[in-house]
Amino acid sequence: MDMNQRLFSFAGGNSGAWRVTDVLAVAGESLKSVGNIGIFSGGSASPRDTSWTLRGVTSNERYVVRGEKASLVAAQPALGRPEATQAALIPIRKTSQWWTLPQDERRAIFEEQSAHIKTGLKYLPAVARRLHHCRDLGGAEPFDFLTWFEFAPAHTAAFDALVAELRASPEWRYVDREVDIRLVRNAP
Amino acid sequence: MDMNQRLFSFAGGNSGAWRVTDVLAVAGESLKSVGNIGIFSGGSASPRDTSWTLRGVTSNERYVVRGEKASLVAAQPALGRPEATQAALIPIRKTSQWWTLPQDERRAIFEEQSAHIKTGLKYLPAVARRLHHCRDLGGAEPFDFLTWFEFAPAHTAAFDALVAELRASPEWRYVDREVDIRLVRNAP
Repeated sequence: MDMNQRLFSFAGGNSGAWRVTDVLAVAGESLKSVGNIGIFSGGSASPRDTSWTLRGVTSNERYVVRGEKASLVAAQPALGRPEATQAALIPIRKTSQWWTLPQDERRAIFEEQSAHIKTGLKYLPAVARRLHHCRDLGGAEPFDFLTWFEFAPAHTAAFDALVAELRASPEWRYVDREVDIRLVRNAP
Repeated sequence: MDMNQRLFSFAGGNSGAWRVTDVLAVAGESLKSVGNIGIFSGGSASPRDTSWTLRGVTSNERYVVRGEKASLVAAQPALGRPEATQAALIPIRKTSQWWTLPQDERRAIFEEQSAHIKTGLKYLPAVARRLHHCRDLGGAEPFDFLTWFEFAPAHTAAFDALVAELRASPEWRYVDREVDIRLVRNAP
């Protein structure tokens, strides 16, 4: 089957471009411990010796309004910067209560109450980010979102502050599974 | 692989619960002509003699606000009413321009400019409807949405008016492929 070119797979196992340094089960069940994670785009095959594979697609924005989008586009860096040798993969699942809320109430919790976009903007351009959606894939996915972050070692404390701020926000009452996987880039 | 229980497949071929009576290519390329369509939920297998299969998942609302949701929930009928022997399957694809718009601008076009929800409400409870999203499936899907409608023969003209109203709206400037497939329920 032809694959969606916005599809990315994160394969946890014995090989991959990123070495796992720490795994924290923030909420709910953790993931099986792995040494490395490889990232594959489109339908490209994962290596054989993987312990798990998480999949998600990049997609249109669900909450961002025009002014916020302009601020994000102006400030957000690309992935793959040479100095950004640290990364985090944070898979998240939200509750069924979240998903049954209408759009205006999810937006109000996301930004007016939780300042999700505003908080993220404070950490730009230090932290590069790519959001992948899993909930509307055809399979029974264990998470709703996978977010991939890259930053330089000097910005690790800033990244820790970013995720701590978000986890303290009202939006996070609707997060029932979250795993925080920290990584460093393997030598090529 | 375990399948998402919100996944539905529409298989066009020589068998299925619904007989195709008419196919109109409203915009872009049509679909290959088929005699019948079968609907399959979750990961259940499609029959062998299918010409094409379209897949989509039901999901959270993207635009509906609290008051609109309450009006819809109060008025919308379930699928499968005995008298609703007519149906329509309308697959739609929107332009990349649509998908790059921020959320507030898509909402404004969808409802404030095009009255998509308000128009739909006028035709309740005559028309039952289920919306399926395809864009964020892992595969390279030919459409972004599949909408399935069921109504009694007496409401066919009303249904024609509903789709004509929507097609005349500003939202439809962003539709670059649409096929309107009409069906009648086969005797069991």
